[in-house]
Amino acid sequence: MRGLHHPTIDAIDLLSVLNALADPIRLAIVVKLADETEHPCTGFDFGVTAASMSHHFRVLREAGISITRQEGKYRWLSLRRADLDSRFPGLLDALLRAAHNRKENTAQ
Amino acid sequence: MRGLHHPTIDAIDLLSVLNALADPIRLAIVVKLADETEHPCTGFDFGVTAASMSHHFRVLREAGISITRQEGKYRWLSLRRADLDSRFPGLLDALLRAAHNRKENTAQ
Repeated sequence: MRGLHHPTIDAIDLLSVLNALADPIRLAIVVKLADETEHPCTGFDFGVTAASMSHHFRVLREAGISITRQEGKYRWLSLRRADLDSRFPGLLDALLRAAHNRKENTAQ
Repeated sequence: MRGLHHPTIDAIDLLSVLNALADPIRLAIVVKLADETEHPCTGFDFGVTAASMSHHFRVLREAGISITRQEGKYRWLSLRRADLDSRFPGLLDALLRAAHNRKENTAQ
């Protein structure tokens, strides 16, 4: 995490989390990260530029939603599930459930 | 509700809800509405202009979070709790809990 700022649990702010998730790409990233594994930053394909994806990863990291781990020239992303569950009990689960329903409805 | 558009339950979109709530004044309005009573639109004092409050009320209404009822020249606001609970189970409760904790932390 050298050089990449991650807020402490206590500094994770509800408004920043809501603002970060109020975007279809960032919400989709979080849905993907909810499988509890670490994902390479190159493993997301939402049809937008690398610069745009970098921006989304940064917003999620700075909001306290994800951890970005640098390994050599690669970056890996994971969800701060335990931190979020501890800070906002029940919120992430409810959001993921709502996001899944949203996807199902959109696919119809 | 003459002339005021309220989305149907099925049209309430998660991203619009998150975007609407990612604002300190709108979140505070929702916390106040969570007492399940109807509030006059004039009953909120957040130190901003009436035009600004109108904007916040509209964003909440159009996101499907609140109902604005016109009565003569007055408007009344209430929370669409049952609709939101039905559409996004657990989300509003988790948000309200998080908002309360946020307020307590801010007050410290």
